[in-house]
Amino acid sequence: MNLALLSDEDFTGENRVRLTGRRLKHLKTVLRASEGRRIPVGRENGLMGEGEVLSLTDTHAELQIILDQNPPAPLPLTLILAMPRPKMLRRVLQTCAALGVKDIWLINSYKVEKSFWQTPWLQEEHLRENLTLGLEQAKDTVMPKVHIRKLFKPFVEDELPGLLAGTRALVAHPGRAEPCPVHLREPAALCIGPEGGFTDYEVGKLEEAGCTSVHLGPRILRVETAVPVLVSRLFDACG
Amino acid sequence: MNLALLSDEDFTGENRVRLTGRRLKHLKTVLRASEGRRIPVGRENGLMGEGEVLSLTDTHAELQIILDQNPPAPLPLTLILAMPRPKMLRRVLQTCAALGVKDIWLINSYKVEKSFWQTPWLQEEHLRENLTLGLEQAKDTVMPKVHIRKLFKPFVEDELPGLLAGTRALVAHPGRAEPCPVHLREPAALCIGPEGGFTDYEVGKLEEAGCTSVHLGPRILRVETAVPVLVSRLFDACG
Repeated sequence: MNLALLSDEDFTGENRVRLTGRRLKHLKTVLRASEGRRIPVGRENGLMGEGEVLSLTDTHAELQIILDQNPPAPLPLTLILAMPRPKMLRRVLQTCAALGVKDIWLINSYKVEKSFWQTPWLQEEHLRENLTLGLEQAKDTVMPKVHIRKLFKPFVEDELPGLLAGTRALVAHPGRAEPCPVHLREPAALCIGPEGGFTDYEVGKLEEAGCTSVHLGPRILRVETAVPVLVSRLFDACG
Repeated sequence: MNLALLSDEDFTGENRVRLTGRRLKHLKTVLRASEGRRIPVGRENGLMGEGEVLSLTDTHAELQIILDQNPPAPLPLTLILAMPRPKMLRRVLQTCAALGVKDIWLINSYKVEKSFWQTPWLQEEHLRENLTLGLEQAKDTVMPKVHIRKLFKPFVEDELPGLLAGTRALVAHPGRAEPCPVHLREPAALCIGPEGGFTDYEVGKLEEAGCTSVHLGPRILRVETAVPVLVSRLFDACG
């Protein structure tokens, strides 16, 4: 936690917040904070700044905060992921949030196991929890939006063309001739398949909707590795 | 497992191998392979190709193999990582192997907890196991080398200058003025700190040894995300 993300419920006054639970525990056990200590804070979907610990008890910490900095720029990227297996989903959500991806679509695909959709990690509170961990890691405040689409065909036929309008639309697919572009100066949409990849039918439908198929070189990467590799390549994410 | 990595012990003849354990289980339960099925295989530190399943029993699979392709190019990178916490170490090793990093140094740093060095994941067999998973994911055969250095000062003073000779040597450090370079056409060495970063003293010692400090933008990334972001940026890893 490189920043404590504050939600409306944390505020007890205009510049006063009360932290409990995970953030309190982090404050006490990892940061070993005491009264007077200043820590980075940020308001969800708002500014970032510093909080000074006014008091610290077993159940909560009171902080006086000043919010005066903008969060880092979001990535102009719509990320469309075949639903990953649950244990990977959590890390992918954290990674996306840390990298500045703000628009995440989890979609079905032939090779997505039906059981993946049953995971509790898709529940709103757990999505928020993992996205929050990513934002707090990276020092960002802007909560990504996650959209869940359990039917492939209606999504690609009815919704995807609209999503892709005005973007450089790509589907990462091993073995295609064209390499993934670098350093875009325009918004992008990127589709990443499941373990084993999209089927040829699915790649065809994604291409019909406006995507260009690109490869990532000879290596086959897991989605949690492919996302940072692609984001870094498309947007020069470091700098 | 997008490729079954074969070691010397698997060979029962010049072009004949016997698979047991994890790879056998994958063959049966994930690939649902039967006799006659061809799967991608590669010999550790050698060529890649295909194996045809000749027989399949509860205890082993016999394959006839043809090895005729080179593995993907290695990255010309020496990666120097402050020892990550154990649960992260496994994923970092897998990610490094998948990305084509072949030379990994795990070093001490002030903010590395002493307990991290006690983890069984540093044992030779477990290092190999996680590196193998990464190679099998990415379809590569060249086993990375992992070097363990539990003392910071002797490493940076006595060994590091030699390691850095002839490379573009970088230390990723938040807040530095210079952004990380892109698309190098030369070998590189990259140092990545622990959670909380290298101390100023440590950055000073790394700079004395020949490293330039560079930043990765305003976001603070976990090492498992920073590695693919940096590799992609430095080497255009997608091809």
